[in-house]
Amino acid sequence: MDSRDRCLTADLPTVRDVRDAAARIRGHAIRTPVLTSSTLDAMFGTRLFFKCENFQKAGAFKFRGACNTVFALSQGEAHRGVATHSSGNHGAALALAARLRGIPCRVVIPGNAPRVKKAAVAGYGAEIDFCAPTLAAREASLEAIVARTKAEVVHPYDDSRVIAGQGTVALELLDALPDLDLVLVPIGGGGLAAGTALTVKSRSPRIRVIAVEPQGADDAYRSFRAGERLPSVAPQTIADGLLTSVGVRNFALVQRFVDDIVTVGETAIVRAMRLMWERMKVVVEPSAAVPLAALVEERIDVRGKRVGIVLSGGNVDLDRLPW
Amino acid sequence: MDSRDRCLTADLPTVRDVRDAAARIRGHAIRTPVLTSSTLDAMFGTRLFFKCENFQKAGAFKFRGACNTVFALSQGEAHRGVATHSSGNHGAALALAARLRGIPCRVVIPGNAPRVKKAAVAGYGAEIDFCAPTLAAREASLEAIVARTKAEVVHPYDDSRVIAGQGTVALELLDALPDLDLVLVPIGGGGLAAGTALTVKSRSPRIRVIAVEPQGADDAYRSFRAGERLPSVAPQTIADGLLTSVGVRNFALVQRFVDDIVTVGETAIVRAMRLMWERMKVVVEPSAAVPLAALVEERIDVRGKRVGIVLSGGNVDLDRLPW
Repeated sequence: MDSRDRCLTADLPTVRDVRDAAARIRGHAIRTPVLTSSTLDAMFGTRLFFKCENFQKAGAFKFRGACNTVFALSQGEAHRGVATHSSGNHGAALALAARLRGIPCRVVIPGNAPRVKKAAVAGYGAEIDFCAPTLAAREASLEAIVARTKAEVVHPYDDSRVIAGQGTVALELLDALPDLDLVLVPIGGGGLAAGTALTVKSRSPRIRVIAVEPQGADDAYRSFRAGERLPSVAPQTIADGLLTSVGVRNFALVQRFVDDIVTVGETAIVRAMRLMWERMKVVVEPSAAVPLAALVEERIDVRGKRVGIVLSGGNVDLDRLPW
Repeated sequence: MDSRDRCLTADLPTVRDVRDAAARIRGHAIRTPVLTSSTLDAMFGTRLFFKCENFQKAGAFKFRGACNTVFALSQGEAHRGVATHSSGNHGAALALAARLRGIPCRVVIPGNAPRVKKAAVAGYGAEIDFCAPTLAAREASLEAIVARTKAEVVHPYDDSRVIAGQGTVALELLDALPDLDLVLVPIGGGGLAAGTALTVKSRSPRIRVIAVEPQGADDAYRSFRAGERLPSVAPQTIADGLLTSVGVRNFALVQRFVDDIVTVGETAIVRAMRLMWERMKVVVEPSAAVPLAALVEERIDVRGKRVGIVLSGGNVDLDRLPW
């Protein structure tokens, strides 16, 4: 852990922050349903419970963290607005949360982001700045905006308020199903994974939490094994929500609360995605299919267990399906 | 009404039969969730509540009627098995219900039915007989099977046990939302429409029930206006679940309990279907999009109302989407 990492982990969220977030976002965020599928249960010899964040406002769990952050701002902060960089779901989520509070929102988006994600950000009334698809370009654009507007930067995942908001998914899942054996969650930047693991382990330490990552963007897997953050270089995966490297706060929480990280291949991700569309009748994006892909590839022993799976989002371009 | 019609309407189901059906299918059928969408609410200036029968077992509301019928059979009847003809959803539903009770099931299917629907029937372990895509061919094939096996014929919609089973959708919808102003339901053979209207009007006569039908298969609309059954001749619509003409018992109940029938065009059906996939993240088949198509075409005044919409099913071929 370098000195920057050590400094930042001082303000890690706790399950208390997750409960506060739940109270703050109530009435704004949807309490998403949990779906089951006897066909998939029979296929994998297990009981699966899918927490459907694809039905969340703006189409992904990201709305929870964005909403928690926007509604936690003081009047003065809120007045100056919020800004972020995002490949899409976080941008749309922040735009919607800002609109609900009636404050300005500016989003930096790489030009190559999926059309449907750009349209959503614009549709929620945010101002968009396009940039090159590199982290450096994103950060430079964002810094320029903040210098001009003094807007509050809301990082897509490496932010305690955001992580606490994402943790409310697991709070609702455990309220409905306190007797799960295992929770599976996709990991990219680690907002959802960290929030989920923190919440699950604080409430029910005996429930295992496994994060699942695409092989083509396996920085969290390698970092977890090495015991230090090893960011991705040129990651490639169809799961476009999981291209980012795990954040500092996120990694600290993942190290503490996640039991294991496994990786999956692209074929299994597409197969899992199609399985859910065809058998469960839900529109999920590739990133959301990553946990089920671990069952398709038999990476995790789930036989006879009760398994919660977080379906992270459903924002896909219906004109460009991967089959 | 001809003498056959008069004779058959003697055994129309009542809301008591719907309640019995609810008790009978409990534990077998899924109590499907009701989803909302603030985006669609804003788009149509109304509050929409979608009862998601696309999440039902076998992917459509049809499982309720099939399950009610199969589990109402005596031991002796059950032993001889069940048989039906169906363009797909009812066949899959009956096959699954029969498998759950452990009895034989035979299904006559037109050769041109969607691949995914045939695969579902076979997947649930029923014996399939293919026939030409005409009602006469279906009925001849079915009669031959029954002569051989003495199986109980379970009609896809013109059967009181089936109608009572389909009525349980509305029972659950009203349990969750007793204060609706209006319920919209697609109409084809009329199992769902009759069961819904019977249940809604018996419980809350002030709630309006409007059935929606494709213009290309508008026999129920014409029959409702004429006051007598006028079956379709060569119907054509993308909503393949609504090609059949309304049944005798179904029409009797529709005349008594449905407030109005409106029709919609193909473009609006596809537009409504895509809207739900894109904004609600649900996989629905074209037939299920027919009620929302009436809002797309502004056929019904829903402004400021609380509107329940039954999403009838989600069985589509993902390799052949209509956009």
